[in-house]
Amino acid sequence: MDRALRLLARSRLLSRNPGSAPSPGLGLGGPAVLLLRPPNAARMASQNSFRIEYDTFGELKVPNDKYYGAQTVRSTMNFKIGGMTERMPIPVIKAFGILKRAAAEVNQDYGLDPKIANAIMKAADEVAEGKLNDHFPLVVWQTGSGTQTNMNVNEVISNRSIEILGGELGSKKPVHPNDHVNKSQSSNDTFPTAMHIAAAIEVHEVLLPGLQKLHDALEAKSKEFDQIIKIGRTHTQDAVPLTLGQEFSGYVQQVKYATTRIKAAMPRIYELAAGGTAVGTGLNTRIGFAEKVAAKVAALTGLPFVTAPNKFEALAAHDALVELSGAMNTTACSLMKIANDIRFLGSGPRSGLGELILPENEPGSSIMPGKVNPTQCEAMTMVAAQVMGNHVAVTVGGSNGHFELNVFKPMMIKNVLHSARLLGDASVSFTENCVVGIQANTERISKLMNESLMLVTALNPHIGYDKAAKIAKTAHKNGSTLKATAIELGYLTAEQFDEWVKPKDMLGPK
Amino acid sequence: MDRALRLLARSRLLSRNPGSAPSPGLGLGGPAVLLLRPPNAARMASQNSFRIEYDTFGELKVPNDKYYGAQTVRSTMNFKIGGMTERMPIPVIKAFGILKRAAAEVNQDYGLDPKIANAIMKAADEVAEGKLNDHFPLVVWQTGSGTQTNMNVNEVISNRSIEILGGELGSKKPVHPNDHVNKSQSSNDTFPTAMHIAAAIEVHEVLLPGLQKLHDALEAKSKEFDQIIKIGRTHTQDAVPLTLGQEFSGYVQQVKYATTRIKAAMPRIYELAAGGTAVGTGLNTRIGFAEKVAAKVAALTGLPFVTAPNKFEALAAHDALVELSGAMNTTACSLMKIANDIRFLGSGPRSGLGELILPENEPGSSIMPGKVNPTQCEAMTMVAAQVMGNHVAVTVGGSNGHFELNVFKPMMIKNVLHSARLLGDASVSFTENCVVGIQANTERISKLMNESLMLVTALNPHIGYDKAAKIAKTAHKNGSTLKATAIELGYLTAEQFDEWVKPKDMLGPK
Amino acid sequence: MDRALRLLARSRLLSRNPGSAPSPGLGLGGPAVLLLRPPNAARMASQNSFRIEYDTFGELKVPNDKYYGAQTVRSTMNFKIGGMTERMPIPVIKAFGILKRAAAEVNQDYGLDPKIANAIMKAADEVAEGKLNDHFPLVVWQTGSGTQTNMNVNEVISNRSIEILGGELGSKKPVHPNDHVNKSQSSNDTFPTAMHIAAAIEVHEVLLPGLQKLHDALEAKSKEFDQIIKIGRTHTQDAVPLTLGQEFSGYVQQVKYATTRIKAAMPRIYELAAGGTAVGTGLNTRIGFAEKVAAKVAALTGLPFVTAPNKFEALAAHDALVELSGAMNTTACSLMKIANDIRFLGSGPRSGLGELILPENEPGSSIMPGKVNPTQCEAMTMVAAQVMGNHVAVTVGGSNGHFELNVFKPMMIKNVLHSARLLGDASVSFTENCVVGIQANTERISKLMNESLMLVTALNPHIGYDKAAKIAKTAHKNGSTLKATAIELGYLTAEQFDEWVKPKDMLGPK
Amino acid sequence: MDRALRLLARSRLLSRNPGSAPSPGLGLGGPAVLLLRPPNAARMASQNSFRIEYDTFGELKVPNDKYYGAQTVRSTMNFKIGGMTERMPIPVIKAFGILKRAAAEVNQDYGLDPKIANAIMKAADEVAEGKLNDHFPLVVWQTGSGTQTNMNVNEVISNRSIEILGGELGSKKPVHPNDHVNKSQSSNDTFPTAMHIAAAIEVHEVLLPGLQKLHDALEAKSKEFDQIIKIGRTHTQDAVPLTLGQEFSGYVQQVKYATTRIKAAMPRIYELAAGGTAVGTGLNTRIGFAEKVAAKVAALTGLPFVTAPNKFEALAAHDALVELSGAMNTTACSLMKIANDIRFLGSGPRSGLGELILPENEPGSSIMPGKVNPTQCEAMTMVAAQVMGNHVAVTVGGSNGHFELNVFKPMMIKNVLHSARLLGDASVSFTENCVVGIQANTERISKLMNESLMLVTALNPHIGYDKAAKIAKTAHKNGSTLKATAIELGYLTAEQFDEWVKPKDMLGPK
Repeated sequence: MDRALRLLARSRLLSRNPGSAPSPGLGLGGPAVLLLRPPNAARMASQNSFRIEYDTFGELKVPNDKYYGAQTVRSTMNFKIGGMTERMPIPVIKAFGILKRAAAEVNQDYGLDPKIANAIMKAADEVAEGKLNDHFPLVVWQTGSGTQTNMNVNEVISNRSIEILGGELGSKKPVHPNDHVNKSQSSNDTFPTAMHIAAAIEVHEVLLPGLQKLHDALEAKSKEFDQIIKIGRTHTQDAVPLTLGQEFSGYVQQVKYATTRIKAAMPRIYELAAGGTAVGTGLNTRIGFAEKVAAKVAALTGLPFVTAPNKFEALAAHDALVELSGAMNTTACSLMKIANDIRFLGSGPRSGLGELILPENEPGSSIMPGKVNPTQCEAMTMVAAQVMGNHVAVTVGGSNGHFELNVFKPMMIKNVLHSARLLGDASVSFTENCVVGIQANTERISKLMNESLMLVTALNPHIGYDKAAKIAKTAHKNGSTLKATAIELGYLTAEQFDEWVKPKDMLGPK
Repeated sequence: MDRALRLLARSRLLSRNPGSAPSPGLGLGGPAVLLLRPPNAARMASQNSFRIEYDTFGELKVPNDKYYGAQTVRSTMNFKIGGMTERMPIPVIKAFGILKRAAAEVNQDYGLDPKIANAIMKAADEVAEGKLNDHFPLVVWQTGSGTQTNMNVNEVISNRSIEILGGELGSKKPVHPNDHVNKSQSSNDTFPTAMHIAAAIEVHEVLLPGLQKLHDALEAKSKEFDQIIKIGRTHTQDAVPLTLGQEFSGYVQQVKYATTRIKAAMPRIYELAAGGTAVGTGLNTRIGFAEKVAAKVAALTGLPFVTAPNKFEALAAHDALVELSGAMNTTACSLMKIANDIRFLGSGPRSGLGELILPENEPGSSIMPGKVNPTQCEAMTMVAAQVMGNHVAVTVGGSNGHFELNVFKPMMIKNVLHSARLLGDASVSFTENCVVGIQANTERISKLMNESLMLVTALNPHIGYDKAAKIAKTAHKNGSTLKATAIELGYLTAEQFDEWVKPKDMLGPK
Repeated sequence: MDRALRLLARSRLLSRNPGSAPSPGLGLGGPAVLLLRPPNAARMASQNSFRIEYDTFGELKVPNDKYYGAQTVRSTMNFKIGGMTERMPIPVIKAFGILKRAAAEVNQDYGLDPKIANAIMKAADEVAEGKLNDHFPLVVWQTGSGTQTNMNVNEVISNRSIEILGGELGSKKPVHPNDHVNKSQSSNDTFPTAMHIAAAIEVHEVLLPGLQKLHDALEAKSKEFDQIIKIGRTHTQDAVPLTLGQEFSGYVQQVKYATTRIKAAMPRIYELAAGGTAVGTGLNTRIGFAEKVAAKVAALTGLPFVTAPNKFEALAAHDALVELSGAMNTTACSLMKIANDIRFLGSGPRSGLGELILPENEPGSSIMPGKVNPTQCEAMTMVAAQVMGNHVAVTVGGSNGHFELNVFKPMMIKNVLHSARLLGDASVSFTENCVVGIQANTERISKLMNESLMLVTALNPHIGYDKAAKIAKTAHKNGSTLKATAIELGYLTAEQFDEWVKPKDMLGPK
Repeated sequence: MDRALRLLARSRLLSRNPGSAPSPGLGLGGPAVLLLRPPNAARMASQNSFRIEYDTFGELKVPNDKYYGAQTVRSTMNFKIGGMTERMPIPVIKAFGILKRAAAEVNQDYGLDPKIANAIMKAADEVAEGKLNDHFPLVVWQTGSGTQTNMNVNEVISNRSIEILGGELGSKKPVHPNDHVNKSQSSNDTFPTAMHIAAAIEVHEVLLPGLQKLHDALEAKSKEFDQIIKIGRTHTQDAVPLTLGQEFSGYVQQVKYATTRIKAAMPRIYELAAGGTAVGTGLNTRIGFAEKVAAKVAALTGLPFVTAPNKFEALAAHDALVELSGAMNTTACSLMKIANDIRFLGSGPRSGLGELILPENEPGSSIMPGKVNPTQCEAMTMVAAQVMGNHVAVTVGGSNGHFELNVFKPMMIKNVLHSARLLGDASVSFTENCVVGIQANTERISKLMNESLMLVTALNPHIGYDKAAKIAKTAHKNGSTLKATAIELGYLTAEQFDEWVKPKDMLGPK
């Protein structure tokens, strides 16, 4: 049986043995190994074989085709919580790659053997590029410091470096996961550093571009619609007119400020804990290490990372993430408002408000022909609700740190990344599949606006509030128009009505 | 190149083309195709070929090795939000399998061709058993009614039934996704039905067993520790004594009531919307259909499902899920309290409270030898925070239904299932890896208890509150024992002290 | 200067000395003294005089016209947080009155001097009746066990009892606040007991009656509207018809279940901590005391209170309140949905949905004559949002207990009582000022329903889905009616259309 | 019967008529009327008399001693929700005073009769100064735009102006509540303007000074403690040392950033909606009005208010308040962490960590002599939980605006002001009654630190990790010291131990 068939056989075998928790050697993991071949995979032994690795608690079998080691395997055994979808988010893993690479460079400056340093850098780059994603099987629900993920990273980089240098996997020689990969570091400062790097990258690569795209599309619509006068609605009730462009300009402002708010939170995110080591003092690291690592990370990412001015705060509290989550929570409020408005303005086609015509993207109903639903608005409002919930999780975690360490780290970063990704992706989806295709139903808009009783407001200066009120109330009672009623009541002529009641003159101060 | 190699090749190809959103034909999905071979896979054409399917919006390419159809593909194109981890939870898919099977049976009673009905039942069973999981690539962030997932299910069951009956995939003959699989149904009633089925099963299979396990372990510890007298702590400050067993009995009660609370929410979860169709009236279904489907689902699951007494409520509101989420939120509070107590009581080894010795499951620190951390407590408290956040997401979604339909359905069920799974799994992990191995540090407990100044309370009836207070304050100031101080102050003799100050007598009313 | 003038003078004096925190002797308080004259007020010395009382920390000036003592005054000095609106809720004070009365009765059974017991009972009754409300100046933001409020109660009852018995205020003779009023009790068990009593009473006196009233009004409307056929709306879009009565029946079900949910939470609320004393062991109390006190409280309130089966849980956790808050959170979701629907269905008068005519209760706008706003819906939805927020505060507090005591007690009960009162009051206001006066705009409803394109669904069995779809889409494009379009397309005759398209036949299964 | 007696009589009368809602003429209100005499009260008729005022809905009796009018009375009848503690917060009323004064000044520039303008300004100043507080009986739970409170303000200022000018209360002459006081304004722009003014003032007068005070006290402690070396704790477990000053420096940083975060939210709070009138267009106002009013408000308050760049956003969304609430939510996390640490570090006196000695402010227990509780920490953590809950209420409200108006305004500002006040007051209370009095228990700190097994870390470079680990584990098992164990194991000499294990050398990088 050749190798490929064996792989297939194994996968069938595994399929008979489903379980909620990742077993050692399987994992998300298990299947992904087939998809994403790690470099030099050929050097690994067959799937069915295991090597023995050990940590201070003893020996463990590690699948030969994985770079991780004993501590990772141990964690998969101790934390069978939630299954595959609960894995440590990939952006955290990639951020660790960046950090470990930066640390290796700085460690080389401080005397680490260049051969080792270079191997670490190469392996770390592979982690940062996502090439080794399937070697990170651990779930979020582990130790609250993320120690096991830090060790997972150390083990993977160590073994991959060993492989690069021609050594034996699991031998910890010549590249030791602790002594070399984790040099001058502790989980307690690396994990929060990776949290900040991951959050900053997700904000810059997904969230802000998504919001910008939405902003630009809304702004274009605001301009496109700037001559369309429509009825305003306050308390969901008919009110005085404004232009559809003005209405959309409010949305534009909301999204613009969403961006402002998120950016305002970033300075604290750019602060890195690296260099604080175990409790914030920087024990076992070198003077200057913290600053140099931050500078390297900044160079690698193009983002203005700096070393945190106070490492005790940086380890023991994650207020910066609560703050960023808060900015996303505000953004969620903005987007829910916008999406709600658009679906209500687009409601109908006959029995709703019907002022907007939304793009039809998919069949709406198998029973009702022609039914089209505002599905993008629905995805967006669901995302908004999720972000509000995530924010509470982040808040609860952020408030429960003790002494020198907050131990809600993996949960907090998971939720922050989740919110950033969802808001960014949903903004793009909503823009592309809804906003850019919105059309104004000008006929309907015009009809509603002209029938509106609230235009009577324009008569106040001419015939007084009381007579105006009488016109409005009479018209409402009789279901007649303002003009007809006004004439019938003898308050003015048709010509006067046409001269005085001009919605165009009601769009701003005088 | 043989088939297995081709699969491998494909997987390499895919790995070069990473993207945030599932492309049609890839999916969770992508990898899983190798693991979980669909029955009769051989009948499918090669990976590189596509068939053409269509919906009312037009034609679309569908990968030949997938059972889903055009509407599913369309959704993957329109909702690129969040990526693989955001897929519709598998328990919802399985619940749909159960529902579709039940509906086919009932439809047969009402005249559906038995050949078609049987094929649907067989295919639906495969869905319910998880055999077709990788044919469900859609994410949660889609239409808020879950219509696209209902159609995904209809398409998969239709095509799989067609295959069973020897027809051509995508032909919709002889089994039509709408006319047959969705017969007498609408997304608007099937999705909430699947939500309730999924939630009830997750509660019964994961959440309640997990809590029971935890309860039993805590109860065993409560009994084991019932003779160990220790200092009580109120306001985190030293207080009068109790037994460690009594302290644990409080935890037992909390977990017991957690179960009570969750069960109290279930009657509304057992109510199924099926039969309400599009708006709750049951248009296009038959009298009796609703009741029969509920009875079939009850028979299939062994859970007491009934038809919802009011279908309008069942479609337009999801208060039952908010209620269940609330019960889990209360449970999260309970578990956070318990886990917090255990980690603080186990703090040390030298400079904490040190009354409990927690199992050592993994190395705690690469810097600090011998450090062991309460990692199971940390996983549990992170889960608790997540559940509290999920609850807010569910609440926001639950409050925002409009008219005849709540359109936060996928988001709501995702969060409810997430909470149930996390609480259940974490309870098991916490029990097995922490609670069962907890030992009392009796020496430490005894020392702290005997040094406690609060034992002075026992002297009140003998020498009065004022003298007792004087003893306590003097002992506190001088760092001496109560006994020595009492004697020194001349208030009593050593014998009297020993006779009067008996912690054992302070453990209950008289 | 006569007495009334002196009172006036004092009030002027006080008005010159505004401050954010209640000064001793002023309080909610200050003014209320004029309203609610304490019994025997004449016995008190003049307003300007103070008596000296002391606690174990020393002497303090206590205003002569107040029954409270030194510990209360000390608390007003140490906790200047939030001002008057932040006082301990009156229902907690009244509940304490009930508890202290019950305890005195039981203590008499166990040997407390009947003269003292009777005086305590009389004074406690006055507290329970709200006659001494202005003697409770403390804010919620005090010690987390509520100790200072328990002492405030003890002091007030002690001094009032002393007064009844002809003694000197502040002398602690013959009725001592600790030895007699607090006999067999601790703050740690009395405060949670008062919390449960207060919550249960508020639920029974305000929340459940309010919901019942709303339920009955909605049910009456549901019946009143049961022949009015209207268009359904799903995804906020036009859908197939239902009756307005059916639509309201969903609301009826929601409110009915709200009541069910709240009642389901009550068994744990009926459990009283009394008898647990300081840490749950019941130290310093008597066997049987707990059960007897619960029975007395049950007798006094007519509610089925029992002693908590586990006092450790009852002091250290407040899961029961989190649970009750969760039931109210679900209720808030229900009420927000209902109020939102009603305001949208009542939107207009010209440019909204306009199916309902809501009562006009007040002028809506000073600019726009005739504008009427759904203000009761707005009050209700604001209340709903507040209850959701309160629930998170309760959740955070409930999750943060430590060891033998949860010290978020005052905050938790404040929020629970706030939610209960707001939901109850808002339900009454919404019912009386909105629901009972809702009228169906039958003309509008009929017009929208008849214009609806979704009625085409009824043609499916006669001419097939495809032709029906063609009719709907053509009618939509041309803005014409289904009937005209169907005839124009030559699919059927006018007579056939009228026979086949009968909304009345679309209201249920067949 | 003289006047004072009549007042007394009235107050007794009122006391017989308790009700959950403020009846007209009673109110905050009822009692306060005695305390805070409005200017020129003598001009008012007796308490028992009423005058008749009217609005467009008809006549209503208004108590003669109140400046408010018919619309206010009508609101008290329609919104009996929550009672006195639910009144519109006084800071909103005062902010309205500032706004109305500014508007009157600007209106004078645009031609308003100076006599009228001046009377309005004088009356508005009295509102701003809090002199007329008891004329604002309305609760928060009213119309969601705050219209009724705007009208309450207009009525009070109108009547007070009339009084100043010698007119008849209720005559609306010569100062009309709408035509003059509300000139160029609408509730829809004035209420959000008052919200922002009130929030900004509360932030500047209460929140920021409170945080500054706390910051300074923590910073002083950080310096005071900078030579005290103590054991660090991560995962609540013993870790390597740091100084107590370093530990406190983390708190300092948190509070410093709290201030930074709040300030970062203020630019959007400084934007005022005034000039947007009903829907944001500025209908019925004058070009320049918006800018001039903002400038006047800025001048009156000394805060940099500007006119909102987009009035549509300013009326329809309150993202700025969600943002500010988010900053306070982050602050709540920070303060909960700090207060939690301090109470745990101060736990004991014998059986806790005991590193800090907290000030004793009040007796802790009536049962346990000498018990002192960290009550200020408890008040602070309860406040933090409340702020987190308030934030969710604000978030829910902020996400639910529709079209041109968000109608959760009163609820949102109530919660924002609540959070600001509580955080500010609690910070002051916590600082004055706890932080400034914290003492380090240096003896205890030293003992714990020296006994710590984690000091073994210092031996790593000298004897290697493995031997160090052996020492730590052996010492732990035997309960012996590191030094004794190290010598016993023969790894080093006493002199070497003393030279190598120097906590002072473990406080930073090298």
